[in-house]
Amino acid sequence: MKTRLLTAITLLGTQLSFAQDSLMFQKISDEVMLHGTCYDNLRVLCKGIGNRISGSANAAKAVEWGKKHMKATGADTVWLQPADVPYWSRGKESLMIKAGNGEYKKMTILSLGNSEGTGGKVLEAPIVMVRDFDEFKALPESAVKGKIIFFNYRFRQDFVFTFKAYGDAVKYRWASPSIAAEKGAAGVIIRSMSTGADDFPHTGSMHYTDSSKKIPEMALGNRSADSLEQYCKRGTVKAKMQSECHMTDKLVRSYNVIGEIKGSQYPDKIITIGGHLDSWDVGEGAQDDGAGCAQSIEVLRTMKALGIRPKYTVRAVLFMNEENGLKGGQAYADSAIARKEHHALAIETDAGGFSPRGIGMEMSEEQKNKVRAYKDLFLPYGVYDFSLDEGGADISPLQNKMKVPVAGLLPDSQRYFDVHHTNNDIFENVNHRELKLGAAVLTQFIYLVSEHEIF
Amino acid sequence: MKTRLLTAITLLGTQLSFAQDSLMFQKISDEVMLHGTCYDNLRVLCKGIGNRISGSANAAKAVEWGKKHMKATGADTVWLQPADVPYWSRGKESLMIKAGNGEYKKMTILSLGNSEGTGGKVLEAPIVMVRDFDEFKALPESAVKGKIIFFNYRFRQDFVFTFKAYGDAVKYRWASPSIAAEKGAAGVIIRSMSTGADDFPHTGSMHYTDSSKKIPEMALGNRSADSLEQYCKRGTVKAKMQSECHMTDKLVRSYNVIGEIKGSQYPDKIITIGGHLDSWDVGEGAQDDGAGCAQSIEVLRTMKALGIRPKYTVRAVLFMNEENGLKGGQAYADSAIARKEHHALAIETDAGGFSPRGIGMEMSEEQKNKVRAYKDLFLPYGVYDFSLDEGGADISPLQNKMKVPVAGLLPDSQRYFDVHHTNNDIFENVNHRELKLGAAVLTQFIYLVSEHEIF
Repeated sequence: MKTRLLTAITLLGTQLSFAQDSLMFQKISDEVMLHGTCYDNLRVLCKGIGNRISGSANAAKAVEWGKKHMKATGADTVWLQPADVPYWSRGKESLMIKAGNGEYKKMTILSLGNSEGTGGKVLEAPIVMVRDFDEFKALPESAVKGKIIFFNYRFRQDFVFTFKAYGDAVKYRWASPSIAAEKGAAGVIIRSMSTGADDFPHTGSMHYTDSSKKIPEMALGNRSADSLEQYCKRGTVKAKMQSECHMTDKLVRSYNVIGEIKGSQYPDKIITIGGHLDSWDVGEGAQDDGAGCAQSIEVLRTMKALGIRPKYTVRAVLFMNEENGLKGGQAYADSAIARKEHHALAIETDAGGFSPRGIGMEMSEEQKNKVRAYKDLFLPYGVYDFSLDEGGADISPLQNKMKVPVAGLLPDSQRYFDVHHTNNDIFENVNHRELKLGAAVLTQFIYLVSEHEIF
Repeated sequence: MKTRLLTAITLLGTQLSFAQDSLMFQKISDEVMLHGTCYDNLRVLCKGIGNRISGSANAAKAVEWGKKHMKATGADTVWLQPADVPYWSRGKESLMIKAGNGEYKKMTILSLGNSEGTGGKVLEAPIVMVRDFDEFKALPESAVKGKIIFFNYRFRQDFVFTFKAYGDAVKYRWASPSIAAEKGAAGVIIRSMSTGADDFPHTGSMHYTDSSKKIPEMALGNRSADSLEQYCKRGTVKAKMQSECHMTDKLVRSYNVIGEIKGSQYPDKIITIGGHLDSWDVGEGAQDDGAGCAQSIEVLRTMKALGIRPKYTVRAVLFMNEENGLKGGQAYADSAIARKEHHALAIETDAGGFSPRGIGMEMSEEQKNKVRAYKDLFLPYGVYDFSLDEGGADISPLQNKMKVPVAGLLPDSQRYFDVHHTNNDIFENVNHRELKLGAAVLTQFIYLVSEHEIF
């Protein structure tokens, strides 16, 4: 009888707690949907400042934007955390293509981030198209030497979860130049990491191996890549590449922007929620990742507006230099180690401000199951998927160096790789309700973890 | 033992079947995502024809578009089903507002569908703002007589599922003129049924009660409604309304477009999948409901492309006149009754071509549970919600007159009421992957129902 009574009391307690949590989830959602400022804040960042590659003047302005809006939330403390970042500059760039005996035609391209251009000179060479690395490896050196290799690998439109397609294809952006240079290629063209039905080329980071010759790399949008594919199938194609892009020698002093609400019961246990403040040097960095920054600020604003005093310390962090160096994420982890901080959980929102669908987790199964016990609470907000292993780049140093459990907001992924790293990643392509709903779910999740002391 | 063995065999059978279904689901998704034509077909409808109110020349062109693309799927039979539809014409319209002693300023408005305008004359009258029907009812007749009533009821941004907010607010569009006219009002202005952070006014159907005086009704976008609200709070506001809209006397001969794949085992059992071909006379009727038409055609194309021979007959129907009369839906049900057809299930896709999230059902609990037994199959495609009661307007006559079980595709609802019934409901606001994914899920659902003889 005793056991049964205890079970009954425990069950009743759980139900009461669920009802209370459910009510708080509703309050949080109502507050963000009706009074949230993230959409207006994002407009200021995108339209008032624009894109903001690490080390640029715009990135410095974005730090000021972050500090101002973090303070406006009423956070207990707001500070800047130094991080020295690389500065990659694009300069002028162009690609001309000549099919058979035709005229040279200008293509719309973007050089890949961190790549070295042609030093402003014209690199003229025949194009050799390959479908993938296997086809490239089968080519004799004589077929590659002095040529521009077109890696025409298609972004997999059949993968429903587009980040899976990104994971599949991104090695062509990242590694092609070094692989091609090893056989003596003079340059590389890639088909963009893009779901786009349009023709926007996508930039993004690449890297050279230590021993590699630094040959240039340019990306074509899907329609241009289709055209080049047709040209190459029909006969010989020549290209003229010209670009000034280069990595500058010196690091630039920049900052993470941090806002904090002190925990009421466990001030030493920290939950971090963050996105990244830097973007590529095209478009407005709206979905990637102005959205995540605006949402992270919104979490603090909402807690303050509702008078929520979290048991744990909650920190919103706008990380610098996610795109091409991760210096902000490293500085944050290094500081945490130096200060012997206890990080209970770190969460990233860097998959776009689209309708939330799930929360990815990288932690022990036991920890995941603790979260999953509450999953029904999220269902009215469209969040049902707690199955995927996802964290985030900025919080990966915390995860790797301090074994902090990490999580990532999983929004609907269908539109992300239409705009990601393009001139089309602009404020107009962010929906106000989708952005706010993501911020609401992040706030709910953090409230839950803190209230129930899950980690 | 026997029972256990039977259970084991049954379980094994179920698992095998699940594995086969899962494989077919994947094939369907791959086919649509890689080779689907719905996005290109929709482009032709939106950009080549444009909006297409019932009875218009564009609606007749849309019928030809439907017939052509339905035939291109390789459907066994394609035919037109006559439906006589009303023709409502907008003509010129304007609203000028004067706050206090200021100048008259032009507002961006849309008259509501089916409403009668001012006959081209200027209706000049003071504006009286009310929050809702309760506040209106409390007004004395003297405060209403001869006035233009501004029903400033806010679309509930706190409702996460936006169709709930639509259900809550739409009575202000539908019924305000008759309610206001009863107390002697001269005209009505409403705040649009809109989640929009922008200023697009939304049209949509209204009706007059039999005894009602037919006073004009115009809608303001959210930002204009905010301005008018401020003016009204500050002091007296006057309006000049002028509009030519009217319902013409005669019905116009139009058509539903129907394509059919004959069932291989039960040709007399019919599954209907449809959207509506007509739209309002603004924008391009892209999300509402060109998307649903393109998806319905895609279902047939995909089945033919994959060589799926459904056990049941599958019919794609592009209904005419959903927006302001439902004559197509009625003609379809009347024909089904006259021909004594057996409709196993009717499905509508008229909630936009956004990422699918669920399938709504209106049928017995037993029938719902038969479908829910397969719900895990849909999870890889982002479809998890089988809890809501949803069908569709076009299939409601089938449901009401023949007791046919009905279902409706439930896409993500966040953006629908930003563009619904506005000049912003254009092709550019439809995403190719989201549209295709919805078509894939519809095909999967129909395959499942037919293969497992669920209804």
